[in-house]
Amino acid sequence: MGKTYIAGIDIGGTGTKIGLVDEKGNIVSQATMPTNCATTAKEFIETVWNKTVGLAGNLTISGIGIGAPNGNYYNGCIENAPNLPWRGRIELSRMFSEVSGLRAIVTNDANAAAMGEMKFGGAKGLDHFIYITLGTGVGSGIVSGGKMIYGHDGMAGELGHTIVVPGGRSCGCGRRGCLEMYASVRGIVFTMNELMQANPGVSALETTENLQSKHIYQAAVNGDKLALQAFDITASVLGIALANAVAFSSPSHIFIFGGLANSGDILMQPLRRYFEENLLNVYQNKVCIEPSLLPDSDAAILGAAALALDDL
Amino acid sequence: MGKTYIAGIDIGGTGTKIGLVDEKGNIVSQATMPTNCATTAKEFIETVWNKTVGLAGNLTISGIGIGAPNGNYYNGCIENAPNLPWRGRIELSRMFSEVSGLRAIVTNDANAAAMGEMKFGGAKGLDHFIYITLGTGVGSGIVSGGKMIYGHDGMAGELGHTIVVPGGRSCGCGRRGCLEMYASVRGIVFTMNELMQANPGVSALETTENLQSKHIYQAAVNGDKLALQAFDITASVLGIALANAVAFSSPSHIFIFGGLANSGDILMQPLRRYFEENLLNVYQNKVCIEPSLLPDSDAAILGAAALALDDL
Repeated sequence: MGKTYIAGIDIGGTGTKIGLVDEKGNIVSQATMPTNCATTAKEFIETVWNKTVGLAGNLTISGIGIGAPNGNYYNGCIENAPNLPWRGRIELSRMFSEVSGLRAIVTNDANAAAMGEMKFGGAKGLDHFIYITLGTGVGSGIVSGGKMIYGHDGMAGELGHTIVVPGGRSCGCGRRGCLEMYASVRGIVFTMNELMQANPGVSALETTENLQSKHIYQAAVNGDKLALQAFDITASVLGIALANAVAFSSPSHIFIFGGLANSGDILMQPLRRYFEENLLNVYQNKVCIEPSLLPDSDAAILGAAALALDDL
Repeated sequence: MGKTYIAGIDIGGTGTKIGLVDEKGNIVSQATMPTNCATTAKEFIETVWNKTVGLAGNLTISGIGIGAPNGNYYNGCIENAPNLPWRGRIELSRMFSEVSGLRAIVTNDANAAAMGEMKFGGAKGLDHFIYITLGTGVGSGIVSGGKMIYGHDGMAGELGHTIVVPGGRSCGCGRRGCLEMYASVRGIVFTMNELMQANPGVSALETTENLQSKHIYQAAVNGDKLALQAFDITASVLGIALANAVAFSSPSHIFIFGGLANSGDILMQPLRRYFEENLLNVYQNKVCIEPSLLPDSDAAILGAAALALDDL
């Protein structure tokens, strides 16, 4: 009886990552390809599967896990994912199963990463936690009683689109004041630009199209007053949003992943303070906020694989 | 083999209700007593149990369910409930078991009512719903995958203490802008008083200590402009809070109970509108907001009984 290997597939707006993962979360081989490498979804899936079989060589693949924007756990589809090249409803799970003869489990990218954290990262053995990804957007996965919360339609866990500043910044979703417009890498750039416009000449940075969150981070590390303030504002909005999330599911831990999460204490220190200040007293000093223990580059593959392992 | 009867006990700040409930949710007999009828918690529990045995007569009681403010499902205790006469930690479940020889299950009052709705009311057969009580305070119970969300410490589901208006009204919990300060019967009185102070002489009502939500409701029914506006403001805050809650657990239904929920279309019509307006597009036109189907007077007893039935 050989070891169990899972194909963990992470479909992103630009690139798709494939990893062959063993039961302990070791990625034994991996590859990346552009998501627009084929004209139709069917061709794309065939290409990905061929690449996966090539990676596996003489190892046997036991299951397929897929993380994708708008991926739906219940029906295995992605529907109208704004960043993917295919329109309408794509039956990812069915199409991967047809080409491979294996079960293929789908969920959205943030839920997949949360599964990865639970199986291989800092959430091992935890039954109640919230996982939040602070990247280009803000995604989340919520685990309660050891189970991912998918909701009645598979679409639960969109904390990035909770309204935290009523009447606030316009969001791509068509509404105003979503957490994503403040606590993402785009959000902090927006905040920094607002601060620099209101306080010209104070920061070493300049308002340009190329301003990125990593520049703000570097300036903050160097003591730039406005850059530090930008992190403080980001932390204050995120702190309220996470405190509100605790009143929902009362987790023991919150894990922060991606982009902004790599800012270390520059973000975490004010975040923990605002978070505690905004917690209802019964929750105070009970909830750990920690950076994810999964490496950025592998989290999505590990998460997708964890999803399939959980299903075996 | 006789029928199964459960003692459903609802401990409130003023009164405690006891009901003998059969498996179908019929209350075969009930009684009410003042919660301060005894000096210690132990005496109180003995008094309640004696009353319950008296109610049962020759019927056999199979279990005890208890709803109480701050009731904790995991440890069966209430801790520092602000509206109850006993301080510190009261081991309700253990003490009821000792006096009765039966298992006694405890949860907070809103969770209990949500269980009642699931077992005997409008949520029968539903796996994903949110239950929200708009009374003196705002409580909630959240069901996902057919299970109540209790969190790591039994304290999940405090939607009344999510911050919906950052920097807003001071709440009894020590923070600002909690949903409870806007969407409770006290909240709408606060709103109405603000409106009358800003617009003197416009409403038929007057700012007095005795102004109650039922007066505002009656004025709204009679077309009072400010009273209608008070309901509109209440609905707008609650609409955002519930839309945010959907982004968390993606329920198929939201049930509204108690005090303000009895205002019918005066509340429900603007609420449904604000709710839909504030929903992320993937959730729009999918979630039913309905008033609870349980009668106000019996919901707590039925809920407590449902909790114990679920455990048998």
